[in-house]
Amino acid sequence: MRINLISDTVTKPTPQMLKAMFDAQVGDDVFKKDASINHLEQKVAEMFEKEAALFFPSGTMANQTAIKLHTNPGDQVICDKDAHIYNYEGGGVSFNSGASCKLIDGHRGMFTAAQAKAAINPPDFYHSPLSSLIALENTANRGGGACWDFSEIEKIHAVARENDLGFHLDGARLWNALVAKGETPAQYGKLFDTISVCLSKGLGCPVGSVLVADEETIHKALRIRKILGGGMRQAGYLAAAGTYALDNHIARLAEDHEKAKEIGKTLESLAIIKKVEPIETNIVIFYLQDDIDEKAFLDKLTALGIDLIGMGSGKLRIVTHLDYTAEMHQEFLKVIQKVV
Amino acid sequence: MRINLISDTVTKPTPQMLKAMFDAQVGDDVFKKDASINHLEQKVAEMFEKEAALFFPSGTMANQTAIKLHTNPGDQVICDKDAHIYNYEGGGVSFNSGASCKLIDGHRGMFTAAQAKAAINPPDFYHSPLSSLIALENTANRGGGACWDFSEIEKIHAVARENDLGFHLDGARLWNALVAKGETPAQYGKLFDTISVCLSKGLGCPVGSVLVADEETIHKALRIRKILGGGMRQAGYLAAAGTYALDNHIARLAEDHEKAKEIGKTLESLAIIKKVEPIETNIVIFYLQDDIDEKAFLDKLTALGIDLIGMGSGKLRIVTHLDYTAEMHQEFLKVIQKVV
Amino acid sequence: MRINLISDTVTKPTPQMLKAMFDAQVGDDVFKKDASINHLEQKVAEMFEKEAALFFPSGTMANQTAIKLHTNPGDQVICDKDAHIYNYEGGGVSFNSGASCKLIDGHRGMFTAAQAKAAINPPDFYHSPLSSLIALENTANRGGGACWDFSEIEKIHAVARENDLGFHLDGARLWNALVAKGETPAQYGKLFDTISVCLSKGLGCPVGSVLVADEETIHKALRIRKILGGGMRQAGYLAAAGTYALDNHIARLAEDHEKAKEIGKTLESLAIIKKVEPIETNIVIFYLQDDIDEKAFLDKLTALGIDLIGMGSGKLRIVTHLDYTAEMHQEFLKVIQKVV
Amino acid sequence: MRINLISDTVTKPTPQMLKAMFDAQVGDDVFKKDASINHLEQKVAEMFEKEAALFFPSGTMANQTAIKLHTNPGDQVICDKDAHIYNYEGGGVSFNSGASCKLIDGHRGMFTAAQAKAAINPPDFYHSPLSSLIALENTANRGGGACWDFSEIEKIHAVARENDLGFHLDGARLWNALVAKGETPAQYGKLFDTISVCLSKGLGCPVGSVLVADEETIHKALRIRKILGGGMRQAGYLAAAGTYALDNHIARLAEDHEKAKEIGKTLESLAIIKKVEPIETNIVIFYLQDDIDEKAFLDKLTALGIDLIGMGSGKLRIVTHLDYTAEMHQEFLKVIQKVV
Repeated sequence: MRINLISDTVTKPTPQMLKAMFDAQVGDDVFKKDASINHLEQKVAEMFEKEAALFFPSGTMANQTAIKLHTNPGDQVICDKDAHIYNYEGGGVSFNSGASCKLIDGHRGMFTAAQAKAAINPPDFYHSPLSSLIALENTANRGGGACWDFSEIEKIHAVARENDLGFHLDGARLWNALVAKGETPAQYGKLFDTISVCLSKGLGCPVGSVLVADEETIHKALRIRKILGGGMRQAGYLAAAGTYALDNHIARLAEDHEKAKEIGKTLESLAIIKKVEPIETNIVIFYLQDDIDEKAFLDKLTALGIDLIGMGSGKLRIVTHLDYTAEMHQEFLKVIQKVV
Repeated sequence: MRINLISDTVTKPTPQMLKAMFDAQVGDDVFKKDASINHLEQKVAEMFEKEAALFFPSGTMANQTAIKLHTNPGDQVICDKDAHIYNYEGGGVSFNSGASCKLIDGHRGMFTAAQAKAAINPPDFYHSPLSSLIALENTANRGGGACWDFSEIEKIHAVARENDLGFHLDGARLWNALVAKGETPAQYGKLFDTISVCLSKGLGCPVGSVLVADEETIHKALRIRKILGGGMRQAGYLAAAGTYALDNHIARLAEDHEKAKEIGKTLESLAIIKKVEPIETNIVIFYLQDDIDEKAFLDKLTALGIDLIGMGSGKLRIVTHLDYTAEMHQEFLKVIQKVV
Repeated sequence: MRINLISDTVTKPTPQMLKAMFDAQVGDDVFKKDASINHLEQKVAEMFEKEAALFFPSGTMANQTAIKLHTNPGDQVICDKDAHIYNYEGGGVSFNSGASCKLIDGHRGMFTAAQAKAAINPPDFYHSPLSSLIALENTANRGGGACWDFSEIEKIHAVARENDLGFHLDGARLWNALVAKGETPAQYGKLFDTISVCLSKGLGCPVGSVLVADEETIHKALRIRKILGGGMRQAGYLAAAGTYALDNHIARLAEDHEKAKEIGKTLESLAIIKKVEPIETNIVIFYLQDDIDEKAFLDKLTALGIDLIGMGSGKLRIVTHLDYTAEMHQEFLKVIQKVV
Repeated sequence: MRINLISDTVTKPTPQMLKAMFDAQVGDDVFKKDASINHLEQKVAEMFEKEAALFFPSGTMANQTAIKLHTNPGDQVICDKDAHIYNYEGGGVSFNSGASCKLIDGHRGMFTAAQAKAAINPPDFYHSPLSSLIALENTANRGGGACWDFSEIEKIHAVARENDLGFHLDGARLWNALVAKGETPAQYGKLFDTISVCLSKGLGCPVGSVLVADEETIHKALRIRKILGGGMRQAGYLAAAGTYALDNHIARLAEDHEKAKEIGKTLESLAIIKKVEPIETNIVIFYLQDDIDEKAFLDKLTALGIDLIGMGSGKLRIVTHLDYTAEMHQEFLKVIQKVV
């Protein structure tokens, strides 16, 4: 039994999800004739109380498309210095949109409305890039799965509106935030112009993300998706997994969160661990004592059947997920205490 | 029974292909750990006797990635005026690569080595864009599924080499050319730096294309695919369909070609048809007599259960494919003769 | 005495122009405080009856800025296959704007309203680039200094308006057209959204072009000019030359045209010349007989003190200009008749 | 008498410089036939002991061209968070090159080799942008005209070489650093691949910057300059000013520095001033006491004939320059002490 805690992207479909995929009605989605994709898009749009939605092969493409729709080349996207769009999308903001990021020095991947406001360049001072978009990420991945305070999001929304800026949410792990905080998709749909959500992380689907927005924006998104090469044919097999997951895998995210917290508690009790970041969802970030070698520690775990990711300088990450079973959990808690 | 002759992209997996898909071993392909994708990539690379291959969600993305790897912004791609990359990829050559197309006024989507040579801009005359790539399309879609003369390709290859230009093949329907002309993938692999092939047209898969090239190019392609948003997770379900199709659906393309030729013969015998283009593979392009209204003709066929695509000004297209059965074929030949 | 007929860009300021330059009041134009530039911009805007104007270091930058303002990446610019923006701006349409050109197969660099209309892609068919701009060039450089028929421009203007496309004029040599046809800048200002005019060709200034448009467009152009690096400081010395030329060098273009026509007449009488294109302004395009070697011909002229440009395959170009004096003209007519 | 301390870009040519301009030999620089430009380029290349140089209409274009030559779209430029290329070039890094900036949290616009090294992304981790360039700015404008420690530059050079990164210097005010620290251009030419220097700031020319590099890079730069629209015709008038300034205006920068230091000393003695940043060259950055209103303070000075720039939150900037005379200096020192 190998225990993979590297990411929640490693999950494989459950037998029921696989059956749903296998039974899917498909068609040519380039002509918008794939019933399973159409059904998924309508379902997600309704959940967020948005007019429309579009299926994408990845969260990166959903985010990149949204950024493209909100910006012109030369413009600037205001986001946290730890944002996924800045750090982990291959420089796509500049490659795909010719835009740059104005980085806010936030806390755990999150920032305040005051910081957002201060990051806006004066629109008539053309030496500076034109600010055109504020982008948030919830939960904040590099912030350790941190959940934004909804009232702060409301304030940032006001800043965006007052300054005529677009407002995008990278919701790759929004489902985790919704469950952790008892919030609803519609609350978010009301504030953001565009929201991307991922089906292949906590929800356990093999492939896919969805972008929600108003009708006109999604119409334009279709063109951008085509240009980026995201127009697929009979992709309904993937969409059917998404529909199944939305019906069956959201509430259970609480179990992943519970396990993450239990892991955190155990880690805090260990002498080799210097610090554990606060745990709100399914991500645990912790630091080894200075005298513990990160690579040696990871190698030892690997030898014991446990895979983690090191982020450098003794900072490590654990992500719980659908395929991390109760049995694995007990095993991990046992092993980690002996690893010293 | 509806008869769909719009495109070979409309096919749905056969029961055997579907079984192959859902028996697939999958993993996280972003970490290159999806066994079904790795297997498909290796298989296609070997067929073309190339070092490496990469799976893509679409032929557009495979082409766009190749073009990006061959060009810098400002450069020029030499291709036929009817090329798919210029006409049907949403302006992606300029959007994704900042490059432009030097259009050759060829014949049925194909051109000569002399034309290619004449299209190269002098490298030191910096008023003109720098020529950096020659791109061919085989079969040529807008040329009516026309197959290139291989010896002309060899001559163009020589022009590319002498002028230090990249050489790319858009092989969305290369399988059709191989079958029609009795050629092998390895012949093409020897000449081209990069080749994209499609799994979802004649081969009948739901989704996917593959790019073959040398190891270093594919390594760089991985980064571009990530930036464009084509990095998928457990996409092995789609790749497994590809492997099945390569084993089972190539030779049978001859049947599609046979049907296309029979359709052509029938069309030629009809008074309402002005002209039928030469038919080499699975595409039939024909023209209505000037006094026949295109829309009325298409509407009549639709009412009779037959879907075609009109290309404007009385020019029409028929594409035969895996889901166009012998029964449909007999029905179509019957109906078309009565439609007048 | 060397006679340079390569281009009208080779002229040097006259003593009076030079005096105007060095008497100029200057300031920091990045802060819009250069009186000479402000004066020139206002003057040109008024001539075209447009709201505003902006000074540029080159015609290429004026055109590229206009194209950027009319397009989004992926869009398509409709222009003649011989257009300067497609052929001689280094691929800038794609580099600077991520846009491509839809090339019209026109006549002498000019096309009809019907051709323009047919070149527009259906806006909802997102496989094709989105058409967003029609660009004309008057006079047409590669068309041999050809002047557009104004009534055809009016019809193309109507096509642009009906289809919600931008309408740009590359007026690098518009002054020549105005003089040749007895037209006014205001006629053009009424039809086009943006017009670039050059000060350094027929008008004889050392450097500079001006873009005219409405106030909002010029406001945006300022930002693009800054990004491209066209924001200069005390460039009023150059602008003062422009003002001088507008006051003193427009009407005299008729002399250049007259000389060009005389050259044409002489060339037509020579046995070694196969054909001379119609001459409307200051450009003469002619073809050598097939048995005359282009390079040898040009070398012979060079030895005789005359510089021309060969365009390949026996096609040659002569451009008359401010520094091509009456004396040079007589000398050239004499020499050319003896060159055989 | 108005005293303009806004920037060193506001200077006008001296009578001698104007005479040098007026006497310049010019030609068509697009064909590289402008003797004054050729002379200037050769002179600057020799000063830096580099193979070649290219004249540009602005420092922004010189920097942007260099960045383009060092990067591919998607790549990342490592620079200080206060860098001019990130803050004041209109987002050009992303617009012109499709690249992004990895911002180092340095001190007074400068950073250490250790910080540079830590900012490099692992080249095989394609989620992150590919690091391809380190860019320094000397003197650092937003750092208050701060001069880099040359030995630190040498260490950063080593980091760049070890990691196969380009190394660019934005030397808009390098002349000031050379004078302040007693360094030579050749010292810098030895370390950097590309260096841009400005003629229109401390040196007092109306327009122009120069990029130095090896021959091949400058050859490529010519193409980029053309695409951006920086190819000018008879721009030798501007280049001649540059040559004059290099011969006559470098050593005198020490006077500007002296005046800046005297201003600093005076400011430090004033109760209304909270803090004055260290002064090394011609820029003085200082802060008003919290109870002093920035706008009111600036308005009062304006009324007294003195123009400064406020940078927000009570932070102000003074720049001394060629047109800031001894007389103005005495006047300013007098006025500023009475302004309270």
